[in-house]
Amino acid sequence: MENFNNYLKIINEAIARIALTRQPENLYQPIAYSLEMGGKRLRPILTLAACDLFGGNINQAIDAAVGIEIFHNFTLVHDDIMDDAPLRRGSKTVYKKWNSNIAILSGDTMFAIALQQLTHTNHPKLKEIISVFVQTAIEVCEGQQFDMDFESRSDVSIAEYLEMIRLKTAVLLGASLKIGALLANAGEDQTRLMYDFGINAGIAFQLKDDWLDAFGDQAKFGKSIGGDILANKKTYLYLKCLQMASSADREILQNLFQISQSDENAKVRSVLELFNKYQIKEAATLEMEKFFQKSIQSINQVVAPADKKEALTGFAEMLYKRDK
Amino acid sequence: MENFNNYLKIINEAIARIALTRQPENLYQPIAYSLEMGGKRLRPILTLAACDLFGGNINQAIDAAVGIEIFHNFTLVHDDIMDDAPLRRGSKTVYKKWNSNIAILSGDTMFAIALQQLTHTNHPKLKEIISVFVQTAIEVCEGQQFDMDFESRSDVSIAEYLEMIRLKTAVLLGASLKIGALLANAGEDQTRLMYDFGINAGIAFQLKDDWLDAFGDQAKFGKSIGGDILANKKTYLYLKCLQMASSADREILQNLFQISQSDENAKVRSVLELFNKYQIKEAATLEMEKFFQKSIQSINQVVAPADKKEALTGFAEMLYKRDK
Repeated sequence: MENFNNYLKIINEAIARIALTRQPENLYQPIAYSLEMGGKRLRPILTLAACDLFGGNINQAIDAAVGIEIFHNFTLVHDDIMDDAPLRRGSKTVYKKWNSNIAILSGDTMFAIALQQLTHTNHPKLKEIISVFVQTAIEVCEGQQFDMDFESRSDVSIAEYLEMIRLKTAVLLGASLKIGALLANAGEDQTRLMYDFGINAGIAFQLKDDWLDAFGDQAKFGKSIGGDILANKKTYLYLKCLQMASSADREILQNLFQISQSDENAKVRSVLELFNKYQIKEAATLEMEKFFQKSIQSINQVVAPADKKEALTGFAEMLYKRDK
Repeated sequence: MENFNNYLKIINEAIARIALTRQPENLYQPIAYSLEMGGKRLRPILTLAACDLFGGNINQAIDAAVGIEIFHNFTLVHDDIMDDAPLRRGSKTVYKKWNSNIAILSGDTMFAIALQQLTHTNHPKLKEIISVFVQTAIEVCEGQQFDMDFESRSDVSIAEYLEMIRLKTAVLLGASLKIGALLANAGEDQTRLMYDFGINAGIAFQLKDDWLDAFGDQAKFGKSIGGDILANKKTYLYLKCLQMASSADREILQNLFQISQSDENAKVRSVLELFNKYQIKEAATLEMEKFFQKSIQSINQVVAPADKKEALTGFAEMLYKRDK
């Protein structure tokens, strides 16, 4: 894990070097605020790790890694407007601290700065790297739109849900790894394996998010259990329960997710009872384990030094096995 | 002008070829709607014209030209949310026809598609072209933020206003021309001259916009005179009048721009009387003529066939001399 802590340090130092004490202040202060909020820096760490895995020079990968992280933060700034989210990582979201116009425009600027960072990369494969990046950006937007569409739809299938989280979350993890591999001049089959590793791990991570929200240990989880339930989010758990339940229970669950109840605890309790009745915890565990194993299968096929592969697998496993 | 009409046709055909009949509909329909609204396609026409001016193959410039046009339309979609604008080119704006979340997200996607188009370009200078594009994108955002900031400031100087319109409007015209020149492998001094041509012509065009809003012939202008006055916009005309007026008149003008009056005609009439008293029409004409002449000086220094230079100058002059 030592390398990964070092990657985090490199990324944070590179982000701190971006000149954001600029005019107009109302544009650049929100950008600095968003980037200083921290976060796990998961995506740029994966880019550096993938570059190193294939013997690349990680110094050559820093600009692209930072670009990917800024892009990720841009999506959070815009998503928070769309989701009307007041808090992010315990602090006010940009649109709550300033306003939505400023959040729209500083988000747009972050997208441009992300690309500027990426374009600083000196590499013969820059065109392919930018192509992967913009294709991924389009898919992330598609994922967010599907997610918003699902709010008002009552016929979302599990397959559609998995495709939504693939687009919204997993493709950027896949692209982070693929771009790192491209920067190290890895071959086409190797970059594809890295992408597949990221896609399947990304889906597993998102399913784990859903899982923790319902079945996590509240003391470790750090936030209340049932946030998704109270927000009527159509997660894997909800969709799987609909699929498994008797028609009477299905109706009860659907009703619970339509009405806004005055007693929040009672609502969470009722939904969890249904989840328990139909063994949704076990079904979700199986499903995420399936995706996680698929991701491991991909990286196992990668031709690279065993210790580096193990470090990357260990990092993914740590994220997957997290209890908060 | 025949070439320019042909360029318009090429651009519209290329835009029509982009596959936008896709899922999710709520993401792609607004994009198609925005791009089908039309508009003058001024920027991509300039890219093709600049490429042709230096003997380049315009077929090689179509992707970049289309990318620039899509970027421009993205800025309109987001600006309309921020400006709360109900209409654009006589049709409902995206955020009015759908909602602001959809307008934010389809705008983001348009930015990514713009880059995707640009990246389709096969050219050894692609890295430089993308760098020009993203730097310009950042500056356009800065210009929009300055414009929003000016709404609540009472101490905006004419120099600040000119810098704001340089960023918000002129740099994208400059970049459109520069990218066309780069695609034709024009030298550094030539691409700089084209950029300067675009910057100064762009400032002249924007000043002309301000001018027409107050002094245009309503029958030809096609919309009501005084829209900027009613919106309390701090245009060149307003700032110049503040500079020229006696302290008593300055106070009257400032008051007129602070209160929202019930009698709109009276407000426009009072402001125009002050503009006439201080010969703002003449001052603004001189100012925009100065920028237009500067733009002509730049293109005059360009080394290119005289007939092609004249066609481009004629096109700029037609835009500048427009009465609507």
